[in-house]
Amino acid sequence: MKFKVDINCDLGESYGAFKVGSDEKIMPHITSANIACGFHAGDPVTIAHTINLAKKYNVAIGAHPSYPDLLGFGRREMRLTPEEIRNYTIYQVSALQGFAATIGENLQHVKLHGALYNTASEDKKTSNAVIEAVQTLNPNLIIFAPPKSALAEAAHSVGLKVAHEFFADRAYNADGSLVSRNEPNAIIQESQKVVERAIKAVKEQKVTAINGDTIKIGKIHTICVHGDTPTAVELAKALKKELAKANIEVKPVRSFL
Amino acid sequence: MKFKVDINCDLGESYGAFKVGSDEKIMPHITSANIACGFHAGDPVTIAHTINLAKKYNVAIGAHPSYPDLLGFGRREMRLTPEEIRNYTIYQVSALQGFAATIGENLQHVKLHGALYNTASEDKKTSNAVIEAVQTLNPNLIIFAPPKSALAEAAHSVGLKVAHEFFADRAYNADGSLVSRNEPNAIIQESQKVVERAIKAVKEQKVTAINGDTIKIGKIHTICVHGDTPTAVELAKALKKELAKANIEVKPVRSFL
Amino acid sequence: MKFKVDINCDLGESYGAFKVGSDEKIMPHITSANIACGFHAGDPVTIAHTINLAKKYNVAIGAHPSYPDLLGFGRREMRLTPEEIRNYTIYQVSALQGFAATIGENLQHVKLHGALYNTASEDKKTSNAVIEAVQTLNPNLIIFAPPKSALAEAAHSVGLKVAHEFFADRAYNADGSLVSRNEPNAIIQESQKVVERAIKAVKEQKVTAINGDTIKIGKIHTICVHGDTPTAVELAKALKKELAKANIEVKPVRSFL
Amino acid sequence: MKFKVDINCDLGESYGAFKVGSDEKIMPHITSANIACGFHAGDPVTIAHTINLAKKYNVAIGAHPSYPDLLGFGRREMRLTPEEIRNYTIYQVSALQGFAATIGENLQHVKLHGALYNTASEDKKTSNAVIEAVQTLNPNLIIFAPPKSALAEAAHSVGLKVAHEFFADRAYNADGSLVSRNEPNAIIQESQKVVERAIKAVKEQKVTAINGDTIKIGKIHTICVHGDTPTAVELAKALKKELAKANIEVKPVRSFL
Repeated sequence: MKFKVDINCDLGESYGAFKVGSDEKIMPHITSANIACGFHAGDPVTIAHTINLAKKYNVAIGAHPSYPDLLGFGRREMRLTPEEIRNYTIYQVSALQGFAATIGENLQHVKLHGALYNTASEDKKTSNAVIEAVQTLNPNLIIFAPPKSALAEAAHSVGLKVAHEFFADRAYNADGSLVSRNEPNAIIQESQKVVERAIKAVKEQKVTAINGDTIKIGKIHTICVHGDTPTAVELAKALKKELAKANIEVKPVRSFL
Repeated sequence: MKFKVDINCDLGESYGAFKVGSDEKIMPHITSANIACGFHAGDPVTIAHTINLAKKYNVAIGAHPSYPDLLGFGRREMRLTPEEIRNYTIYQVSALQGFAATIGENLQHVKLHGALYNTASEDKKTSNAVIEAVQTLNPNLIIFAPPKSALAEAAHSVGLKVAHEFFADRAYNADGSLVSRNEPNAIIQESQKVVERAIKAVKEQKVTAINGDTIKIGKIHTICVHGDTPTAVELAKALKKELAKANIEVKPVRSFL
Repeated sequence: MKFKVDINCDLGESYGAFKVGSDEKIMPHITSANIACGFHAGDPVTIAHTINLAKKYNVAIGAHPSYPDLLGFGRREMRLTPEEIRNYTIYQVSALQGFAATIGENLQHVKLHGALYNTASEDKKTSNAVIEAVQTLNPNLIIFAPPKSALAEAAHSVGLKVAHEFFADRAYNADGSLVSRNEPNAIIQESQKVVERAIKAVKEQKVTAINGDTIKIGKIHTICVHGDTPTAVELAKALKKELAKANIEVKPVRSFL
Repeated sequence: MKFKVDINCDLGESYGAFKVGSDEKIMPHITSANIACGFHAGDPVTIAHTINLAKKYNVAIGAHPSYPDLLGFGRREMRLTPEEIRNYTIYQVSALQGFAATIGENLQHVKLHGALYNTASEDKKTSNAVIEAVQTLNPNLIIFAPPKSALAEAAHSVGLKVAHEFFADRAYNADGSLVSRNEPNAIIQESQKVVERAIKAVKEQKVTAINGDTIKIGKIHTICVHGDTPTAVELAKALKKELAKANIEVKPVRSFL
């Protein structure tokens, strides 16, 4: 049996004249793009540009919906009703789906952004609202979620496919949660270390927690690369190359899930 | 041969707690709804509510895209590039299309809003950008446009169907253009007079201009009712009833175009 | 000794073409206006119109800052940093202050809006951030706050004046908190009952809680009228008239605090 | 007699997580900062940061108001009414004025941004609306405007001081207007050439137009440096140094106008 994994990255996060990220440089080294839908970033011109770029590099296209908070880049918790979350999700995923259709592509997946990702990972009302939206819209969409999260469970419960996500450049607590970005050592910067963690996660389904414990994380389908770190391009490049060397096939998650 | 016509109205123009119009009351008396897409009005919760209301009354659903100007309600001219107009249109129509799909419906049409409608009616670059967006997205969508306008021509030139629109409650100049809202007598308030003008437009393809001339306007497919006038509900009701009495069948434009 | 009290109302909550409230009708019956600053409602044209209306009726002008959430009308909790809250407050109060200066007026007070009011009433970090902003900007501004709240305490601790606010049309729990709007009987609709509660609060510093207990609320300086209820105009009118009959002078809070 | 000139730059044009410009590096080399007010860029946290940075380097603070168009960065013409322009200007300048007050500073000037600058330079209705706003708010504010423009005239006519602005890195047409950015050679990139043009403008009140003609531009008070060009920091540095060498004193315009 051969190992397979997907590499995903948040892209299309510019907004008009406000330019974010190095999309052109990072696209060749990933297999799934989470494209901002306009609520935290991602105006329509940027979306059009980004989906074309994804197509050029055979990268699978996903929607990256968020809380409606451009000023906070979707990183601030907002207390919304399930009705609001459901309809905000439908709106954003539909917009992306329309753009994908204009170039003959289908969306592969939905990955929530920032605070919405975090809340939906823990809160049932939020995750149910998101999943209800996605299922109504397109039951073939794959949900990106942390293994065992409320979001993963909500997706499974209605029969949606879930890609378990591993954050190779983030430290994990012994309980399997991510170390908060406010803590020192939350971010792992050394490219080689990130690669090693990714390989271990894929092949052994394990990660070394910040306290030294080895913890089981379950089967991993996709590895997240943060596009806004200075070393993102190099990191993605190294990851793709080293995973291949380690006999792990890197391709869009829909091809093996 | 029997005469047929559609009655359309702009709906779903609330925005969160900001409530606009009498959608619930006007929906039973129209046959096509132009639903705001979020750029001048129309948040996702409102869109969901409005498409369900349309379905309940067998009203055909259309997208009502606008310039991105919530503060100006899309009524202020903005100088955008064709690339911006094309992608803003794709974004908005796609969002509406997604919502329609969640209730098993297809969009019937696209009617531009406010300043974008006016500019696209006269300016080739703008109308071409809009039409390019719609055609790429869904070539079955019907374009609502003034007869002989740049917008109608752009749609015809690529093979999109066009519903010619008549403004029964607006005065016309002798050259076929609308009298500006800033002029006195631009708006026709008396319900009976509006009805008479609608019947004449449909049956005789003529309207009496503000200077008394009778002018030819060509075949009319849809009559616009403005939902934000105080008498909108009564007017729509009277129109539907009186058109039927005059032996004109009132139904969604896709059924006869 | 004569009793004195202020009547305040949230006004200027339109946004461009989105019209909210009956400002023209309610202004004659209040003594302090909380004017929206653009973050949940209140565009610059509306602000200009509303401060002129306030001046016409000798109503004291206050800023009504909010979370930046037009779509949620500032009613949704957002998790912001103290730095964000402080600067969002400075921005909004400054904008209002500038408009007041154009007609030769000074701001009397700051009343927070919606979710920000609620959070600042309970959370020290939030209330401290708000108070820091106000004090830096203008230490003569009066803070509207529930008696004994975190917000009132933060204001007192730096020497800002506080106007204790009573919600005459809202039911109180036995612990002095407001009954949630989601509960039945949270809103008191009968004008006569609202008036009685207001008089009792001002003269006896007491309110009858929803469980029948009589609770002490401390000295009250201002009574809030909600401008968005259908009966707001009548209620404000009745309140002003009946308070006067009960020998309570109704005037802007700065005249007696 | 000694020559004197001011160097101004647009700063504070980030928006939340969207970072723009090299404010920290450019601030030491200019004498007046035009600070974005939130309509095209510039959230409250950014404003607070930028005015503190200006104070640190003894740079005079100005407001940089814009059309309300975050998505278009204020670079797209919008057709607004004079009432809208007047009140949008009051709102933005007031917000900046409030922030300046929190650090014990007064605003020195108002420089319009992007499309609003261009329109106000040519259109009387627009320039009158802007000037009416500024004069009502604070008649000591200096208006930055092209010499002989409608904006300069509107300011002069009510007694406001005007700082004539020269764009050292932009090519001029023979009629004194700027060569459009869409034309080749509109931007002058070579640092040395920019410096020479600046010196000539200040000392001789002349510029060499794109066709080779030498044209008179009148007395110049301030030179604009564009902060978003890659070479902005070097250019500002060179300009300040070379102007001093050429015996031109570089200081905030309020000190000599």
